[in-house]
Order: sequence, then C-alpha cells, then structure tokens
Amino acid sequence: MIPSTASELRQMAVRGEWCKPTSGILDDLQQANLVIVSRDLAWDFLLFCVRNPKVCPLLAVGEPGEYQLQVGHTLVDVRTMLPRYRIWKAGSLVAEPYDLQQHWHENAVAFLLGCSHTFDGPLRRAGIPVSHEAPAVYISNIPCIQAGSIGGPMAVSMRPIHHSKIATATAVTARYASGHGMPVHYGSPEDIGITDLSQPDFGVYPGLEAGYVPVFWACGVTPQIVLPPLKLEWMCSHYPGHMLVLDDNVDFFSLQQT
Amino acid sequence: MIPSTASELRQMAVRGEWCKPTSGILDDLQQANLVIVSRDLAWDFLLFCVRNPKVCPLLAVGEPGEYQLQVGHTLVDVRTMLPRYRIWKAGSLVAEPYDLQQHWHENAVAFLLGCSHTFDGPLRRAGIPVSHEAPAVYISNIPCIQAGSIGGPMAVSMRPIHHSKIATATAVTARYASGHGMPVHYGSPEDIGITDLSQPDFGVYPGLEAGYVPVFWACGVTPQIVLPPLKLEWMCSHYPGHMLVLDDNVDFFSLQQT
Repeated sequence: MIPSTASELRQMAVRGEWCKPTSGILDDLQQANLVIVSRDLAWDFLLFCVRNPKVCPLLAVGEPGEYQLQVGHTLVDVRTMLPRYRIWKAGSLVAEPYDLQQHWHENAVAFLLGCSHTFDGPLRRAGIPVSHEAPAVYISNIPCIQAGSIGGPMAVSMRPIHHSKIATATAVTARYASGHGMPVHYGSPEDIGITDLSQPDFGVYPGLEAGYVPVFWACGVTPQIVLPPLKLEWMCSHYPGHMLVLDDNVDFFSLQQT
Repeated sequence: MIPSTASELRQMAVRGEWCKPTSGILDDLQQANLVIVSRDLAWDFLLFCVRNPKVCPLLAVGEPGEYQLQVGHTLVDVRTMLPRYRIWKAGSLVAEPYDLQQHWHENAVAFLLGCSHTFDGPLRRAGIPVSHEAPAVYISNIPCIQAGSIGGPMAVSMRPIHHSKIATATAVTARYASGHGMPVHYGSPEDIGITDLSQPDFGVYPGLEAGYVPVFWACGVTPQIVLPPLKLEWMCSHYPGHMLVLDDNVDFFSLQQT
C-alpha cells in the first residue's frame, strides 16, 4: 500500500510498515536527509552545511539531545519517522536499523537537510520525465569547502535530461534551494571523477538514451562520505533513498530564504 | 572623496580615511554586517543565523581566532576593513573604535551577514527611488526564532514604496537572499510595535509622501539588539550603517544558494 499523505507515510515508518525508498512517491513534498552527530562535532558540521549550502541545505537543526523538531508545519520525531537508518561507530558502519530509539543519546544533535527527490514533481510538471526509482548517486571528485575537521568529495545525484530541456531543468531546480538548487555539472562524467556511469555508488542507474545528457546535482548523501573517515565515536544518518517526508511542499521551504 | 571601488573603500577604512556610512555608495555590491562573539557562544549564534535566515543571511563564518576570511573574491581582514566598530563588555557598549586590531582575541569567531543596502541598486534600476542615506531602522515586536540562549525582537529597515510598486519591490528583493530577501511587513507600523515612524532607532527617517507605504525588511542590526542582554564577557559588531563592502555584487552571493 502506498501512503497518500506524508503523515500516513511517517506513521507507517513509526510502526515499521514502510521500510522502502521514498523516491517516486509524495515527491512534491519536501523530503529530507538526516545526519546526527555528537555535540562535540556539531559546530564543525553546522559550519560545513553553511559553507556548502547546495550540498547540505539546512531545514532544521536540533539543540543537543532534542529529537522532536518542529519543521515547517510538521512535528518530527527524528528517531522513528524515517523508513530506515544507518549507524557508524569509529568510522565503521555497524547497523542499519528501522528505528533509532535504542540508539539515541543526550548529546546527539540532529540535522535535517533538503533532498533532491523533492524537485522531481516540479520537473515532471515542466515536461521533464524523471525516474520514479531512487536517482543514481556517485561520489564525484568535486571538493566540498572545508569546515574545521570536515572536508572531502561531493556526492552527486544524476538525472538524464534531453539536450533541449537543460535550461528548463536548470531554471526549475534553481527555484528550490531546499532541494539542492541548480545543477553542479552537465555532461562529461569523467571531468568530475566518474569513470562508469552505469555503476552508481547508490541508487539505480536509469540508462542514458540518445540525445540525453547526464546532469548532476549536489546530493545529501555527502555527509555519509565525508564524516566516517573522521572515525567519530558515534554518528547516524538516514539510509540512502529512505528519506523523511514532510507535510509542507518544497515551495514552502525554499521561500523561507527569500 | 568617494571611493570608486570596494577595494579602495576598504583600504581607506584600513587607513582611517573612511569613517562614514556606506549607504548610497557602491550599493550594487554586496555589503555586510559583522558580528564577533567568543567561541563559547558561536554555536548558539550560528544556529540563530540558520533559523533566522532573513535576519542573518550568512556570507561567511570564521574558525575561532581567524580574522582573515575569503568571502567570494575578496580577502577580508575583519579587524580593519570596516569603517567603524562597536564593542560590548558584559552587555554594555564600551567603545566605538575605527579598528579592532587591539581588541581581537584568539577565541573570537567572526560572522559576516548580508545587508539590505545591497539591493538599493537593483531597486533603483527597477524604477523605485531609494534614499541614499542610511535607511531608517526600528526595533519591531516581531520575534526571532530562538536558538539556545539567543532570542528577541527583530530589527527592521524601512523604505517608503509607492503603492503601485509594492509587488515590484517584493519581487526584486526576493531575488537577493544575501540582502535579507523580501519584506517582512507592509504598512501599519503599529502592528509590528512601531509607534512613531518618524523616530527610528537607527538611520535616517526619509519621510513618507502621500501614496507611499512603509515597507519593512529584516535588518542585520538585530544581533546588536538580541546579544547584549546576554551580558557576554565580550562581543563586537560593525557600527550601524558602516558596513563591509565586498568586491562581488549581490547577484554573486545570492546565486550561491541556487
């Protein structure tokens, strides 16, 4: 059963009844990446988000220990309302649970970051077909801007865009700062360190028909690439593609900036 | 002598030869508010900026002790390149010097925030006359969103806009997230706690001719209102209206978000 509202999806996630990706459903609504780090890294990570706004568009940041966040018109429990999570200890991925209640602690600081699923609806309405599967995501060689101890390469999501629609895709996504904004690269995957487009690091390769150009957007999986090498005692994130879905649409959040 | 480039203005400020407001000059370029707090308040203040992006549009944040910041294409020494500063100790304003070199310390964290002077150029080009004096600024009763220990009322700048141009003024300024974005209030000053429009808390009241509506934008003086009550051991800011002027224009900085 596919939920018809974000609230229903979140409640299904709480009950363990929705454990799948959130791409291709409710994709006019703001979807969000989750990163949770301990208080002692929170300053560096917040600074990283501020310096890399296309990579990590901030929707909400909790105080230390705070797991219930008001995000637009949605009251979110970040421990339970996402379909699936990942937990790292000392830089190693140790668990991929469906619930964080047993893993929460009082120094945990939660960050919710915008997600590009979010502009798939607006792209479709602009006449640009987009796969309903999780987009292909690659670890590029584009460097993020360093913040304190945090730096490294940018993860990018790719959508094939017909050459006649590239300006439209740029203009549409530029409207959505909370969905990673406009692209960071067009064509030539090798120029950003991607050697085989058919082998993404995450998500599903949608193929590339004649006349289509691979277009790349900054991706909220990036923290899962740049944080583990720091070998933090503890960190959590959403499981790639398994996002928090909020009640407000992407226009609501992007307008907060204007 | 009015400097013809931002670089010239900054060098005049370094030499103590420009100690005046920066409104009405170089107002197509990104101008910036400065806030400096000690490391122990930096997390709360960064969170305050993130939660109140119209009030405190972040252009750059230094690491603790860092006074040279690369901001777009400008290398800024925040201690010397602004025309005038303010220093508070234990919540009291204790000095308004023209240089911070003697007042800097290794735990100081500098924040540069966008400024609304910046969209006066675009407004004029759209056929909306704007005063060349520092805009009238009021302490409103609009609450900022709390972040840790920091909260309080929003300072707002006011420009009189002819009733036929209100939509245009909204659309133009909405383009400039790094210039405080679109207005926060139109008309009826009493609804936001302003009892006498002719008596601003800062800046110059430009009068209000028949057919003109007072339109209010979030203002970067807000930190100078909400931080002193915390009675911090030490904090600094720019002197109201005496801004840092950067080499890049406001389009450059606002595009970073898209």
